[in-house]
Amino acid sequence: MTGKIYIIGIGPGSSEYLTKIAIDTVKKSDYTVGSTRAIALFDDVKNKVPFNVKELLNKLEEAVELAIKGYVVSILSTGDPGFSGVLNTVLRISLDKNFPKKNIEVIPGISSLQLAAAKNKIQWDNANVMTFHGRENIEDILKVINNGKTTIALPSRKVKDMAQFLLDNNVDESRKVVVCERLSYPDERIVEATLKDIANSEFTYMCIMILY
Amino acid sequence: MTGKIYIIGIGPGSSEYLTKIAIDTVKKSDYTVGSTRAIALFDDVKNKVPFNVKELLNKLEEAVELAIKGYVVSILSTGDPGFSGVLNTVLRISLDKNFPKKNIEVIPGISSLQLAAAKNKIQWDNANVMTFHGRENIEDILKVINNGKTTIALPSRKVKDMAQFLLDNNVDESRKVVVCERLSYPDERIVEATLKDIANSEFTYMCIMILY
Repeated sequence: MTGKIYIIGIGPGSSEYLTKIAIDTVKKSDYTVGSTRAIALFDDVKNKVPFNVKELLNKLEEAVELAIKGYVVSILSTGDPGFSGVLNTVLRISLDKNFPKKNIEVIPGISSLQLAAAKNKIQWDNANVMTFHGRENIEDILKVINNGKTTIALPSRKVKDMAQFLLDNNVDESRKVVVCERLSYPDERIVEATLKDIANSEFTYMCIMILY
Repeated sequence: MTGKIYIIGIGPGSSEYLTKIAIDTVKKSDYTVGSTRAIALFDDVKNKVPFNVKELLNKLEEAVELAIKGYVVSILSTGDPGFSGVLNTVLRISLDKNFPKKNIEVIPGISSLQLAAAKNKIQWDNANVMTFHGRENIEDILKVINNGKTTIALPSRKVKDMAQFLLDNNVDESRKVVVCERLSYPDERIVEATLKDIANSEFTYMCIMILY
């Protein structure tokens, strides 16, 4: 019997943003694969398969293999699996291993971009929403940066490098930028400054940049 | 003492997509303003201020006036308040009535666009994501419809009218379209067909259109 894979969005990081369906799906799963931090958000987990970032691909392969054996497997994805998440990677591995796509179900979660928009009271349906995580399409931001809309971006590299890239490409150094760091964590930080100042500031990797 | 307004995203419709923070915030509110259907999702509500769509503006004004009197008021918004939600309307009313923006907090929710993407296993960070709800910018879809990406749209009018608009503007009648109707409700329906067939089909107003 073929098993089932659930790819579950867990939201930006705090358990406050978990949905009921995420909690219930983990509860009914035979195995739950995710970062140690992600798994810790759930109280009721049968068999934990924790990983650190370096092991991600191996552990996703292991998840698919468990499902092929007939188990119900949940894969935890920070934010929303469909926004800068693991969805496409799991689909590719499943295709390689002939695991049927129809046995994969995606459960959306709150993306950190949504929380960043919420914290700053921005309607993001009229913003430029972009992710550069794990991508090399950073030039795409230049196409929209001056179209009159607010830009909400997940940077691909350090925030200061992204800011420097924009300065190097003639974006106004006095442009207003808000950096949302570690949203929903106890040490969450929201910094408003000019683009020039941001290029001289240090942030962690868990950031959203808003360019007004 | 000035009160507080929470604008809460309740997700696509089923209580399964509520977050813990949404439930806890309603619980601690003096008043909860929302559609009858939205309020019914919550077990623990003090003072209910239900409305139907026609009364929306009046009831949002009432919500702001209650907050001015010092109450903690939750306003329930289907999906995510920041994606085709009531955020900008509440901000405008608050500005008119001199209610301080800093006393407004937004709690994001799962948008029906995210659930549509999840059901169809699409990474929407690389899609054209557009809302036409209550807007007259329908021509904007023509600018992106042939850019090679999948388009996920909340139609402004009936799905069949939107499909006919695309046909009238020379979009290929054999184009693959998926319509997701009443997602997360017991009578949820997902229909895959050609653009031409969709233009001849009837759907309710609660739909997402995906154009491949």
